[in-house]
Amino acid sequence: MAENRAEFLAAAQALLGPRGLTRDPELVTPWLTDWRDRFTGRALALASPTSTAEVAGLLRLCTLHRIPIVPQGGNSGMSGGATPGADGGELLLSLRRMNTIRALETAARQVTAEAGVILETLHKAAEDQGLRFPLSLGGKGSATVGGLVSTNAGGTQVLRHGSMRALVLGLEAVLPDGSVFDATIPLKKDNRGFDLKQLLIGSEGTLGIVTAATLRLVPAVAERRVIWAGLDSIVAARELLLHCEAAEGDALEGFEVLPDHCLDRVVAFLPGARSPLAGAHRWHALIELVADASGAETLGERAEAMIATAFERGLVADAAIASNEAQAEAFWQLRENIAPAERAGGPAVQHDVSVPLADVPGFVEAVVPAVEARFPGTRAVAFGHLGDGNVHFHVLAPPATNDAAAWQENEGKTISRFVHDQVTHWHGSISAEHGIGQLKRDELARLGDPVALALMARVKTALDPLGIMNPGKLL
Amino acid sequence: MAENRAEFLAAAQALLGPRGLTRDPELVTPWLTDWRDRFTGRALALASPTSTAEVAGLLRLCTLHRIPIVPQGGNSGMSGGATPGADGGELLLSLRRMNTIRALETAARQVTAEAGVILETLHKAAEDQGLRFPLSLGGKGSATVGGLVSTNAGGTQVLRHGSMRALVLGLEAVLPDGSVFDATIPLKKDNRGFDLKQLLIGSEGTLGIVTAATLRLVPAVAERRVIWAGLDSIVAARELLLHCEAAEGDALEGFEVLPDHCLDRVVAFLPGARSPLAGAHRWHALIELVADASGAETLGERAEAMIATAFERGLVADAAIASNEAQAEAFWQLRENIAPAERAGGPAVQHDVSVPLADVPGFVEAVVPAVEARFPGTRAVAFGHLGDGNVHFHVLAPPATNDAAAWQENEGKTISRFVHDQVTHWHGSISAEHGIGQLKRDELARLGDPVALALMARVKTALDPLGIMNPGKLL
Repeated sequence: MAENRAEFLAAAQALLGPRGLTRDPELVTPWLTDWRDRFTGRALALASPTSTAEVAGLLRLCTLHRIPIVPQGGNSGMSGGATPGADGGELLLSLRRMNTIRALETAARQVTAEAGVILETLHKAAEDQGLRFPLSLGGKGSATVGGLVSTNAGGTQVLRHGSMRALVLGLEAVLPDGSVFDATIPLKKDNRGFDLKQLLIGSEGTLGIVTAATLRLVPAVAERRVIWAGLDSIVAARELLLHCEAAEGDALEGFEVLPDHCLDRVVAFLPGARSPLAGAHRWHALIELVADASGAETLGERAEAMIATAFERGLVADAAIASNEAQAEAFWQLRENIAPAERAGGPAVQHDVSVPLADVPGFVEAVVPAVEARFPGTRAVAFGHLGDGNVHFHVLAPPATNDAAAWQENEGKTISRFVHDQVTHWHGSISAEHGIGQLKRDELARLGDPVALALMARVKTALDPLGIMNPGKLL
Repeated sequence: MAENRAEFLAAAQALLGPRGLTRDPELVTPWLTDWRDRFTGRALALASPTSTAEVAGLLRLCTLHRIPIVPQGGNSGMSGGATPGADGGELLLSLRRMNTIRALETAARQVTAEAGVILETLHKAAEDQGLRFPLSLGGKGSATVGGLVSTNAGGTQVLRHGSMRALVLGLEAVLPDGSVFDATIPLKKDNRGFDLKQLLIGSEGTLGIVTAATLRLVPAVAERRVIWAGLDSIVAARELLLHCEAAEGDALEGFEVLPDHCLDRVVAFLPGARSPLAGAHRWHALIELVADASGAETLGERAEAMIATAFERGLVADAAIASNEAQAEAFWQLRENIAPAERAGGPAVQHDVSVPLADVPGFVEAVVPAVEARFPGTRAVAFGHLGDGNVHFHVLAPPATNDAAAWQENEGKTISRFVHDQVTHWHGSISAEHGIGQLKRDELARLGDPVALALMARVKTALDPLGIMNPGKLL
């Protein structure tokens, strides 16, 4: 082993103790592969500090001995951003033992949580105080505050509450040299220069280690109405979205869309599932309105009025408001089973992309047929968060595809490049909410704005001159 | 003249033409002093480009010839950030001729405006489409989009809509080397690395020149209710704020507070003015609820219910809802005449500071008497945006003060340092919304977090290695 590594390990062991640093393969190996099983790496050791001071001490050692660091939260990211590289020289830094909720201030509606606090734990803590943290996603049982901040995570509630960036009021981070940037006490107004926490949010651990964040909470949901609408086109879906925003902008929590064949696959896949509407419609929208205690009483009639007006104006072909919580849940189950139904049907390549809000219909109507024409036998499926301009653009392999892995590696990559080219042409983003990590690093370098990429490289070098922070990711 | 300056001027003249570059003192001098008349500088020339391409060409020349640049919008900033230094070697770069509204998209509720568009013009353009741009301030007749973005401007609507940062959806900026960072087409979700536009917002022209911004619009106000409340203490004011937020969070547009003697001075100063309430109260709150068309019908009864409950819970001593628009305007006139009434009364030093939201009452109750005890004869006045934690903390000179200028320069500066020390002790900001500029640069260096200052310096050097962007400001 190189001398610097041996010296580093001895010093880190002394700093963190036996539970804080391990090289035991049984303990380290489970964290070396991402949860989608796409990336596997090796690590020098697994460090699990329990405090900001320990993280700071560890980063001073990393700087001294030139040891690269890969920070990791719940290891449920989508782009391999928390998986180390192949050479075995990187320190895997788990934040999972930093899991204290330092403060939950009910009147101020804010919570300061350490990086290792799991999203579900945070949800529960907020609920116990009659509040909620308005961001959720599939991996909520593993995703951590540090990971959510570092990847600027999204979800189905972004329409109303924004991504993590909009929910982060304050931040604590350890910089590569071990200095601690402490801005956990939020100020609603503060014009003392550059807003440095914005640089850390979404930087995927390439600039520093997020150790805690102060997050915005909102009142608990007292009442919701879930609506299923049948539509003739995705153009009509956007018209309906604008109508709902104008009528109930402050209550509109979600607006998801999917095409008919996507719904058909879910209904065929999910035992007991049925389409919420009797007739056939080319597109479907799932709409959720929520109210806290102050607006709960009137929500039902407001939802009915909103839909009645939509009918009058010819904005929907058909619609149903869930008559109870069980039906509301059944509507959401249809949305949440799109991915499982797709996986059951055969290989596919997925793209998490966004375009300007007004361009979603144009993009979908142009790019779906373009992909299917260019790659005969494939089926393109665009669904997702219409209100965020965030389209999950999946391309299903031709039905006769036998070797799924080979198709994904060859044809799949060609398709992805084609889709990303189209997204770029539409002034969109090749990563709407999943980040870049290892997965899309080459595509970002290929398609990103050269001015933006050069700026990012300058910032990266300024903050991490030794290049030890999550190397091989993002940039 | 130094050779580089002569060469630069010749090249810039060729690039911009006679209207685009002038050294005529009659044209240049009016822009060399800030509007509060605190700072005066000299300039090599006044450049007034009309396009992003011209700005880019100019910055390439500045980089080539090492010419420092001071960008300027409406020249109505509060901290001397747009006034050049004394040596006469800096180019004053006015963005005022870049005043095109490039696009106003009604359905998408967004507007792309060039840096020189004046705030009032923007307001008007939005109104013409049944929308509004929800940020306003005293200098709206001169303040420009570029200046508002570069200083992350605030105002009285931040409570509900946030500062400029929250309203900027996209940005275009020219970097020191003349490259153009074009992110004017907004994406609601985009996780392709660092959010670079956040660095430009609030950086006071020290990193690049903002040439255009895409801004968020909201529905026009269809109805408002303005309420005046009398309170026993600022603690009670915060209780009332929390009550209003819980009851009408989505409609609560403003929540301003002022102490009794502050109101008394306004009533004595403003012809025809009277206190909205019959009795005497130690503190007063001015509350505004607004609704767009969808909520207009019920706003009146909701305002009444909110105040009735506040009475029931003992949260207000007395309150009046303006019975018509004229009375509502009269209530606001009391708030807006605090500064003029103060100026008429004698010299004072002003501090635009913020503390964590929950700490405003504690801060005011501790620091007002501390200042008055430490500086006998002075009167400390804390008023302003309670809902933003943003206190305008003014200290009036003792009544017998004869030489106002001398008092401000000597005693005033000592008082300011004392106030800033207190703000720092309370984990607050010495600049809530007015920025740092020249005015508070030394105080930021004295009191700022060394880690944050070092980070800012690194970012500054990375983006502006020659140090030509607005030197002597902020850092």
